[in-house]
Amino acid sequence: MQDRIRNARMLERVMSAEQAAELIKPGMTVAMSGFTGAGYPKAVPQALAARMESAHAAGEQFKIRVLTGASTAPELDGALAKVDGMELRLPYQSDPALRERINAGELDYIDIHLSHVAQHTWYGFFGDVDLAVVEVVGILEDGRLIPSSSVGNNKTWLEQADKVIVEVNSAQPAELEGMHDVYYGTALPPNRKPIQLLHPDDRIGEPYLQVDPDKIVAIVHTDAPDRNSPFNPPDETSQQIAGHLLDFLDQEVQRGRLTDKLLPLQSGVGNIPNAVLEGLAAGGYRGLTAYTEVIQDGMLKLIKDGVLRMASATSFSLSQAGVEEFNANVDYYRERIILRTQEISNHPELIRRLGCIALNGMIEADIYGNVNSTHIAGTKVMNGIGGSGDFARNGYLSVFMSPSTAKAGKISSIVPMASHVDHTEHDTMIVVTEHGLADLRGLAPKQRARKIIDTCAHPDYRPMLQDYFDRACRDSFGKHTPHLLGEALSWHQRFVETGSMRP
Amino acid sequence: MQDRIRNARMLERVMSAEQAAELIKPGMTVAMSGFTGAGYPKAVPQALAARMESAHAAGEQFKIRVLTGASTAPELDGALAKVDGMELRLPYQSDPALRERINAGELDYIDIHLSHVAQHTWYGFFGDVDLAVVEVVGILEDGRLIPSSSVGNNKTWLEQADKVIVEVNSAQPAELEGMHDVYYGTALPPNRKPIQLLHPDDRIGEPYLQVDPDKIVAIVHTDAPDRNSPFNPPDETSQQIAGHLLDFLDQEVQRGRLTDKLLPLQSGVGNIPNAVLEGLAAGGYRGLTAYTEVIQDGMLKLIKDGVLRMASATSFSLSQAGVEEFNANVDYYRERIILRTQEISNHPELIRRLGCIALNGMIEADIYGNVNSTHIAGTKVMNGIGGSGDFARNGYLSVFMSPSTAKAGKISSIVPMASHVDHTEHDTMIVVTEHGLADLRGLAPKQRARKIIDTCAHPDYRPMLQDYFDRACRDSFGKHTPHLLGEALSWHQRFVETGSMRP
Repeated sequence: MQDRIRNARMLERVMSAEQAAELIKPGMTVAMSGFTGAGYPKAVPQALAARMESAHAAGEQFKIRVLTGASTAPELDGALAKVDGMELRLPYQSDPALRERINAGELDYIDIHLSHVAQHTWYGFFGDVDLAVVEVVGILEDGRLIPSSSVGNNKTWLEQADKVIVEVNSAQPAELEGMHDVYYGTALPPNRKPIQLLHPDDRIGEPYLQVDPDKIVAIVHTDAPDRNSPFNPPDETSQQIAGHLLDFLDQEVQRGRLTDKLLPLQSGVGNIPNAVLEGLAAGGYRGLTAYTEVIQDGMLKLIKDGVLRMASATSFSLSQAGVEEFNANVDYYRERIILRTQEISNHPELIRRLGCIALNGMIEADIYGNVNSTHIAGTKVMNGIGGSGDFARNGYLSVFMSPSTAKAGKISSIVPMASHVDHTEHDTMIVVTEHGLADLRGLAPKQRARKIIDTCAHPDYRPMLQDYFDRACRDSFGKHTPHLLGEALSWHQRFVETGSMRP
Repeated sequence: MQDRIRNARMLERVMSAEQAAELIKPGMTVAMSGFTGAGYPKAVPQALAARMESAHAAGEQFKIRVLTGASTAPELDGALAKVDGMELRLPYQSDPALRERINAGELDYIDIHLSHVAQHTWYGFFGDVDLAVVEVVGILEDGRLIPSSSVGNNKTWLEQADKVIVEVNSAQPAELEGMHDVYYGTALPPNRKPIQLLHPDDRIGEPYLQVDPDKIVAIVHTDAPDRNSPFNPPDETSQQIAGHLLDFLDQEVQRGRLTDKLLPLQSGVGNIPNAVLEGLAAGGYRGLTAYTEVIQDGMLKLIKDGVLRMASATSFSLSQAGVEEFNANVDYYRERIILRTQEISNHPELIRRLGCIALNGMIEADIYGNVNSTHIAGTKVMNGIGGSGDFARNGYLSVFMSPSTAKAGKISSIVPMASHVDHTEHDTMIVVTEHGLADLRGLAPKQRARKIIDTCAHPDYRPMLQDYFDRACRDSFGKHTPHLLGEALSWHQRFVETGSMRP
């Protein structure tokens, strides 16, 4: 353990997870590390959940408010959700047990742009942060922390929390040291300065996290891997979606709007983005960059093959095989990957300056290009908006992708009216399904509707959409954005009632 | 005229508006100056409208695509709309004749963030710009142009258009010279640099517009005032709304979150913002700044009184009395007002850095804080999103204000579900009506709903909203953002059918 905790004073504060969890009291606001199932604390949340369970069994209330970077894993969100231990959770989550509680109305969940979380904390909008629980790779002689497989909001949590519990995870490769770039130039208005990041590979900070040693109340040793999201090879639908997007990018290059180095890629997590990345490799692109949130297996491969020259992110999200590949070639990857704080990875100033190509999934788009990224049938939250808004609003291109149907065709992802809007018509440039790509740039609402219906909708739903649009153009109150308000959400209502959007 | 056109070569290109209008051909994309009824061309559009009318009478098609800064005036939007002379218009508009045509479905209107217009043009997303028509105060010896009462997108239009028609308006005060700050440091990705503007009063550009003299095909002399929006003293409802906001700002100062200099104010146009400005003066604030789009009469007064130390904007929107006040004290105002291009006045990088307090009107907000700024009953566009999205997303505070009802109580501005979403739940911090202020920061959806219903809704509609929310909490498919999809838009539907949201 001494090789990971090189500061003598810190070694004295080592204790068990159970002892550390005793420091967390009901009602506290606890900020935890973790982003896309990487770098989250592995032991203290579970020990805390056990305490909560005992308290609840004894008839005592024990809930806390939990802030993170983004999604975590069963050991954190799952464990606390199962014992009903959270009264509030923010931002992004993806845990089934937690999701179920949120949608049962049993806890409050704040879905917020990932670029806003840190600054809203600095501004005091979430109240005081009582305690932080942050996983690190190790502690330096001088007390600074080597960040783990995600950076997320950790700089903010360490600065803002009154007390800090550090989990030192020996299972995280020591070789992560030096990969991070923690920017300490942030300030509150009116004292903010331009952020001098001009390229995705610019380093503007330092590789370590600073923390006031007097705040550290416990150090817990762990030896457990990250969630290790399984990596599934892209299915046929994903490959078709990727194919349309790649054709489009090729055309943009041919038209001279983009060079063959494209612009920095932001890529969401999942099958479709992975198919896009594979397609870029197959298409002969080389020397690209990524300015994104998460490094997945697919991106490692692109870096290895030279398709990506480098990638900037705030977190890893690797499968077990990906972790092994990373560990086996860590020196190579360390020179080509930078992990930043999430207020920098998702910063509007930087995304707009760099001109990112924003590639995100969606639940549904309506015929006018309003996109729902978060709510099934307008009411049941799936994961959250994450960074999609940061990138879609500010990127050079905003692309939203989805299969045209879900649940074996019972749900159309192209609908008359989005049942919840996370990205407005003003922010959506491109919509892609396996049937085609709708380029909405420079189009007015009714032009967009025709293009989305003709290009993106599943053939089973296309006539229904066309019929709705035709009747709306005839009978709508206003004819700028024609709608029939009495049936605009009827597809969703039918799904809620019958399990299918089909009549 | 020679005192306004100091370049000999340019003097040779002076012609009548009718002659200049001959240079505009059917199908052209024509970019015109103008922002909030200021600095728009006064003569050429009317001469063009006359040509179009003749052509239409002769059975010929004559329509053009029109790009501007924002809203213009009857001499431009009104004249061209009346003769059905536009096939496309973007962005923001507020002309009754134009609005009527848009909502009759007779022309395409693209409603786009004002910060996006210039860069989408640079990117080629709107196609080629064939011709620009730009009003200026004068032409220097070296051919550079003295900008008029608005800057808007003029730098972009002059750069991007193949040909340029300049209107030199003697009615604009010559003393405007020196007030402008035209930033020439923009670039396309991947060559963008940080914009070195750290305070609202920083000058980062030059006071003149550059133009390739070979592009100038016509110079037209005009002598006509701007639209001169009448200035109405705030009514009681506006004063109540302002009162709630001022109480809130006072509390934020007392809590130490803001200093008594606040942060740079962005203020929309109209009665309520004017009441807020008056309230700031009455409340004893001094030495504030504005980083906004438009300077109205109210702001001139604040500058004169020292309440505002300076104001940065892209345009004036003054009444006749305001113009006279400005002209009488132009030396004083020139030191305290900077007019910038609209890609800088509305730039996300700068709004976030400065931490603007974004004060904007709205049509409606739903109980979860989704805001509709543009569409009556979800279908009929009013004006457009303007810069409200630029400021709301990136500001330190995003405030949306409206009377709680419209049309003598027949419309509630607080509704179960917004019929069109321009600002999502992720972007709305504060909602204010004459009944109170809902501070939504750090609240989850159902908490927001309770606060908005209790605080902002009109008492006549409050029980209906509470009843909807209660039943939605009980019966909704998902209970994160409870809705009853079958009746979420029923208030709007009732309004369309009966003229009132009341049952």
